[in-house]
Amino acid sequence: VTEEYQLYYWPMIQGRGEFVRLLLEDTDQPYRDVARMDPAQGGGIPAMKRLLTDMDYGFAPPVLKAGDLLLSQTILICQFLARLHDRMPAGEQEQWRAGHLALTAYDFAVETHNVHHPLGPSLYYEQQRDEAQRAASAFLEHRLPKFLGFYDSCLQSNAERGPWLIGSQLSYPDLWLFQILEGLCFSFPNAMRRCLRVYPRLGEFRDAVRLRPRLGAYLSSERRIPFNELGLFRHYPELDPD
Amino acid sequence: VTEEYQLYYWPMIQGRGEFVRLLLEDTDQPYRDVARMDPAQGGGIPAMKRLLTDMDYGFAPPVLKAGDLLLSQTILICQFLARLHDRMPAGEQEQWRAGHLALTAYDFAVETHNVHHPLGPSLYYEQQRDEAQRAASAFLEHRLPKFLGFYDSCLQSNAERGPWLIGSQLSYPDLWLFQILEGLCFSFPNAMRRCLRVYPRLGEFRDAVRLRPRLGAYLSSERRIPFNELGLFRHYPELDPD
Repeated sequence: VTEEYQLYYWPMIQGRGEFVRLLLEDTDQPYRDVARMDPAQGGGIPAMKRLLTDMDYGFAPPVLKAGDLLLSQTILICQFLARLHDRMPAGEQEQWRAGHLALTAYDFAVETHNVHHPLGPSLYYEQQRDEAQRAASAFLEHRLPKFLGFYDSCLQSNAERGPWLIGSQLSYPDLWLFQILEGLCFSFPNAMRRCLRVYPRLGEFRDAVRLRPRLGAYLSSERRIPFNELGLFRHYPELDPD
Repeated sequence: VTEEYQLYYWPMIQGRGEFVRLLLEDTDQPYRDVARMDPAQGGGIPAMKRLLTDMDYGFAPPVLKAGDLLLSQTILICQFLARLHDRMPAGEQEQWRAGHLALTAYDFAVETHNVHHPLGPSLYYEQQRDEAQRAASAFLEHRLPKFLGFYDSCLQSNAERGPWLIGSQLSYPDLWLFQILEGLCFSFPNAMRRCLRVYPRLGEFRDAVRLRPRLGAYLSSERRIPFNELGLFRHYPELDPD
C-alpha cells in the first residue's frame, strides 16, 4: 500500500505548487494538500513551516512527501511524479527534451513573475510599480513573443503525432505550458489576445488540455484556487495596456 | 570509443556554460568548446547558432552534444555528466537532494543576474542603472544572506562527512555553489568580504574546491575565461557600496 502523497505549499495561491497539483490531478493520485487542511488536524501553514524547519535542506515550498522521500524544487517533484505515473515520454532523447521544455517553461514563469517584482521578492509590488511598468513593456515586446513563438514551433514540429509538445501523449512539460498560458491570460489579457491571434496553435493546445476529463473536473472544482494578486501570475491592469 | 563531448556556448563569457565546463574539467573529460574554435575549422559563434537553428527545440545555449544525444538547459547537462562521471551522490534521497541544491543554486544565479538586469534581458545595463541600484540594495540586504545562510547550514549539517554539500565526495551541486561564490566575490567584493566573515565555512569550502588538482589547473589556465561585464556575474562598483 502506497502512502498518500502529501503536498506542502501555500494555501492561498496557485503559485509554483500548482504545477504539482495539476500533475497529481491529471494522474488521479490521491494527495493531501497539507497547508490547506485544518490546523487542528495537523494542517495549515504552521505544518508547512514546521516541515521546512525540520527537514534537512529546507529552503522554500513546494515540498512533496512521498513515502519516506522528501522532494523539493517544483521541477524535480514533477519529474518524480511523471516518471511514476506515466507522464514521462519514452526514449532517452525525448526524456531530456522533456526536461529542457519544462526547465525553459520554468525560466518563462520566473521571468513572468519578475515583471511585477523587478527589484526582487523582498519588496512589495507597490514599492516597485514604476519599475514594473518598464519591465512589463520590455517583457511584452521581446520576451513574451520569444517564449510563445518557441513553444508554438515545438507544437508545430510535433503536430503530426498529436496536440502535445512531445509524441502522442501528454507529458509533464505540457502541464507547465498549459499553466503558464492560463496564468498569462489572467495577467495580460490584452497582450495575450493579440498573441493568440499570431499563434492560434497555443489556444488549441490549451483547449486540448482543458478537455482532459480529470483535469477539467479539477479546474472547475473548489480545489482549484482562483488566480489572485498574491501568486506567481498577477493581473495589474496598468501593466497590460490595450 | 566514446566521441568527444562538444559544448556549444558563448566564447567570450563564463556565463551558464561555465557550470558545464567546471564539471567537464573536474572529471577530466576531453571536450571541444566549439564556439571558441576557429570558424575555418567549423567553430565560432556561427557554428553555435547553426546548431540552435537546426536542432529541434533549440532555445538558448549551452547545448552539449554527447554522441547522438543533444542536451540543453544547464542543470540537465550537469545531471547527465554527473551521472556518467561519478559526480552524483549514491542513494535516491541524496540524488533528489543534489537536484534540489543545484536548482536552488540555479535560482540564486538567476537572481544575481537580475540585479544588474532588473527590467529583463532585452535592455542594456546602461538603460536600467537606477533600477539596478535599488535591486542591488534589496539583494544584498535580503536575498544574498538568505541564500548564503542556507548553503552554510547545508555544509554545516554535512561537516562530519566532508567539506562538501552531500556525503564524503564532491557532487555536481558543489560546483554550482563554488562557481556562484567565485562570481559573487568578483561582482560584490565588499559585500562578500562581510558575508564570508559571517559564514567562514563558505570560504573554506571554496578553498577546498580550488585545491582539487584538475580544477585548480583549469582555473589557472587560459581555458578559464576571466569574469567580465558581459557575463552572468558582473562587477559594477556602484552596486557594491563599501
